[in-house]
Amino acid sequence: MKSHLSDIEIAQKIKLKPITEVAQQLSIDDDELECFGHTKAKISLDILERLEDKPDGQVILVTSINPTPAGEGKSTVTVGLSQALAKAGKKTIVALREPSLGPTMGMKGGAAGGGYSQVLPMEDINLHFTGDMHAITCANNALAAFIDNHIHQGNELNIDIRRVVWKRTLDLNDRALRETVIGLGGKGNGFPREDGFDITVASEIMAVLCLASNLKDLKKRLAAMIVGFTVDQKPVTVEMLGVHGALTLLLKDALKPNLVQTVEGTPALVHGGPFANIAHGSNSLIATKVAAKLADFVVTEAGFGADLGAEKFLHIKTRAGQFTPGAVVIVATIRALKMHGSVNIGDLKTKNIEAVKIGMANLEKHIETIIAFGLPYVVALNRFVQDADEELETVLDWCEEHSHPVALCNVWEEGGKGGLALAEKVINVLEKKENHFSYLYDLSDSIEEKLTKISRTVYGAEGVKWTEKAKKQLIELEKNGLGNLPVCVAKTQYSLSDDPEKIGRPKGFFITVRELKPSAGAGFIVALTGSILTMPGLPKQPAALNMDVDENGKAKGLF
Amino acid sequence: MKSHLSDIEIAQKIKLKPITEVAQQLSIDDDELECFGHTKAKISLDILERLEDKPDGQVILVTSINPTPAGEGKSTVTVGLSQALAKAGKKTIVALREPSLGPTMGMKGGAAGGGYSQVLPMEDINLHFTGDMHAITCANNALAAFIDNHIHQGNELNIDIRRVVWKRTLDLNDRALRETVIGLGGKGNGFPREDGFDITVASEIMAVLCLASNLKDLKKRLAAMIVGFTVDQKPVTVEMLGVHGALTLLLKDALKPNLVQTVEGTPALVHGGPFANIAHGSNSLIATKVAAKLADFVVTEAGFGADLGAEKFLHIKTRAGQFTPGAVVIVATIRALKMHGSVNIGDLKTKNIEAVKIGMANLEKHIETIIAFGLPYVVALNRFVQDADEELETVLDWCEEHSHPVALCNVWEEGGKGGLALAEKVINVLEKKENHFSYLYDLSDSIEEKLTKISRTVYGAEGVKWTEKAKKQLIELEKNGLGNLPVCVAKTQYSLSDDPEKIGRPKGFFITVRELKPSAGAGFIVALTGSILTMPGLPKQPAALNMDVDENGKAKGLF
Repeated sequence: MKSHLSDIEIAQKIKLKPITEVAQQLSIDDDELECFGHTKAKISLDILERLEDKPDGQVILVTSINPTPAGEGKSTVTVGLSQALAKAGKKTIVALREPSLGPTMGMKGGAAGGGYSQVLPMEDINLHFTGDMHAITCANNALAAFIDNHIHQGNELNIDIRRVVWKRTLDLNDRALRETVIGLGGKGNGFPREDGFDITVASEIMAVLCLASNLKDLKKRLAAMIVGFTVDQKPVTVEMLGVHGALTLLLKDALKPNLVQTVEGTPALVHGGPFANIAHGSNSLIATKVAAKLADFVVTEAGFGADLGAEKFLHIKTRAGQFTPGAVVIVATIRALKMHGSVNIGDLKTKNIEAVKIGMANLEKHIETIIAFGLPYVVALNRFVQDADEELETVLDWCEEHSHPVALCNVWEEGGKGGLALAEKVINVLEKKENHFSYLYDLSDSIEEKLTKISRTVYGAEGVKWTEKAKKQLIELEKNGLGNLPVCVAKTQYSLSDDPEKIGRPKGFFITVRELKPSAGAGFIVALTGSILTMPGLPKQPAALNMDVDENGKAKGLF
Repeated sequence: MKSHLSDIEIAQKIKLKPITEVAQQLSIDDDELECFGHTKAKISLDILERLEDKPDGQVILVTSINPTPAGEGKSTVTVGLSQALAKAGKKTIVALREPSLGPTMGMKGGAAGGGYSQVLPMEDINLHFTGDMHAITCANNALAAFIDNHIHQGNELNIDIRRVVWKRTLDLNDRALRETVIGLGGKGNGFPREDGFDITVASEIMAVLCLASNLKDLKKRLAAMIVGFTVDQKPVTVEMLGVHGALTLLLKDALKPNLVQTVEGTPALVHGGPFANIAHGSNSLIATKVAAKLADFVVTEAGFGADLGAEKFLHIKTRAGQFTPGAVVIVATIRALKMHGSVNIGDLKTKNIEAVKIGMANLEKHIETIIAFGLPYVVALNRFVQDADEELETVLDWCEEHSHPVALCNVWEEGGKGGLALAEKVINVLEKKENHFSYLYDLSDSIEEKLTKISRTVYGAEGVKWTEKAKKQLIELEKNGLGNLPVCVAKTQYSLSDDPEKIGRPKGFFITVRELKPSAGAGFIVALTGSILTMPGLPKQPAALNMDVDENGKAKGLF
């Protein structure tokens, strides 16, 4: 059995193809490729112009039921499915988010898939990679410096220092920076004010980069970002500060998608990684677009469960990119189903058919959501070592009984081979099922209507409640002409509701919107339904304590 | 006349050689080269092993007299001289520091030489380049997060939160972050304490990276860094926190030198960029070592005038690298000489022979310093458009009268051709002058003795005065076993003294040491002789306001 090797051990055993060879197989021109070492490259955006008239490949979105805190292996299934499609003779690319260093050095580990379904070189991808994350951190903090400098140098725009909403960021877990006071030390150091740092993936610039269609659009979106408000309560934008050109310059290379490969040599575009709560949680639109030009099948994923990831992918990302996904894969695991069947996290390894059956209500709701969007789908039951055959059969039987296409997959242990059954089902629904993709709300709906439609159709809620603060903000947003943007809900990923304790398929509940925040550059209104931590902390024993590098540069302790 | 083109216009006219071709000309093996796009690459440290037995090329250090605030074109002369040596048929590499984004976006502009003596691609070098600066920022701030997390999670090491000396950094000019309070917001966010941010080049990690001889040495130096003190006043090191492995992992690629080329295709290693006041101010030791293995002539520079840059290069860097430089080039300009002859900054363009003559005393002192070190030298008179022939002749005549080798150079306007006379003189002193290189102090000297010797011999001071604070720190440093490290003086670059107003060749003055700080990982004691700003601010009209990028990715507004 292969499975006792760690991710990094598997990764370091693999002999990678030169990235130039991966690129040649995709017919990427030499001058469209910018190598970063031997196994990573950026692809020039010129390729989109060259291939403008080429029809797009099918985009397959991988999403999941509401996950356990450990995650259900969605990235691993995404990579594994791409490998399986390649094994089945289909020209396939997998498109994924870039991992963030904070969680990598903290507790969660990296995010490049796992086992025999991971993207490589995992050491590089999980550390600095091609520098995109650092470019975003840098642009984000340059903007913050320009704001405070504007205030210091006379504050011509009359910015209210109590209402600077642009925060600084670091790509780290650093709780001590959540709430700070800056500008101390006297006149030479600016004006003292309250401030705070987010993790870089929470920066609006990350969301902007991931939704921009080209450099021009990137600049337009950066220019539109709201960084604060004037003393007379008017929004202050980046354009008013005059630094949208400089920010675009800082991001010009970060906008180019990164080409790498999976354990089995399937091409992978790993690019961008916005938060899945206050942002839309999927890789860059440009990476998806480039992948669709280069391959017949693009497998991609969106963060958290279908209530967050798929909903935002389908409402925000496909709108920005004007494309229709071909099919959706809904990942379920026995352990998550048991959790939704009221089993405690500590007991998820114990066989419990009854709990699996009860938990299936969660899966059922997510299937209904995808049906509501009019999209073909397949349920992927992602096998874990401890799953009992009887538990797995319970799920397979239920799906077949209800005519939901389903496949068991074992891609972590077996790579592409373990995803062949899933690949076959996916190809089948793409060929045979009709695609009636439509949005669940219109942009012309009011913000209240949009949230009500999402809450009812996607979460199964009775309706939406608004705090006084949110009601005021509704008025301000409409006044500032932002009412026709899509909404991006920040909600717990553990429940269909806004209460993480409500597992399974809760009913009769309301969603409470506490606060609304415009991400005018990204082009959505964030609706906060709970307190969302945008700067994680480190655990008592951070993963970093086990990290090392030997004298020859070989990494240790990444996972 | 070519000189009316801006640096970026010149840069964008040049057709660069593929970096693989530059590498081939240096006999770098294919597997020792990691390309970053088509015109940048990192060189694997394996090359030092392969070439271990090859004799080193000659290292030529470019330094200068005390500069005007605008700088005397030292980097430009360094690049120009390398181009001239190449033109003269010598196998030459130029080794330079990496620019910092803060000044690039602020006022000073980039730092990759200028005119027809610059390193390319200047847009990349001046922005994110190969990510070294970001890796250092990241490692620096990860360490800060680990410190605050250690305190938050129980503080086993008993760190005194009033004596955490490790600061966070950003590669930006951001005065609002100079003095901050962090850890606010309650129990979940750690302990509130005073903190502050430096610019990344001021991080001790930058100095460590630039003095490390390999990965193993890097880890050892990182482990030795002092981040704070316990409640009972014992130093707390990175090793005690257990994160030296993780930090080394974050820096493993940043340690590899970056290969680029000059306007004329001369190979350039641009790597590392420590502050020239609180650190030693020259490119990485590894870059210098690799360059010396690959070429017969290595032209390099050190920040500020010879009193700071050359002194530290010769006492700190050559000690860490155990090498002897072949010769020193001392750059002088008419405008700086006039400043030392008491002309106001606003009047430096007006012809003034008398002022030039008086100002020459500053040049004379720096020549004496290099003679004291026992090294061959050449004076490079760096021509500016406004210089009068008579002014130039005054300097040339004086040098010849006193038998100081001298050459006029015009490399900004003419490239290598404008440095041929200088190259000839340099080759001549390398061949004909004896090299009696020796240090001006021994490591076994006490810290007081070291500072006294530097102050007397290099600055021409009467002696050193110590504040009460510095006296206490002297005792603490000796107690902690750090007394045998070299010293690194943080002093104004505008004067030989510690008072920027004392131009020319001041006499009868004392140097006042206000504070001593151990950089135990870098391996030196910083002696602060004035208030050194380690986080610059932005001007009212930052350079960023003119920066932009067009739809094809072409950069504008860099200089």
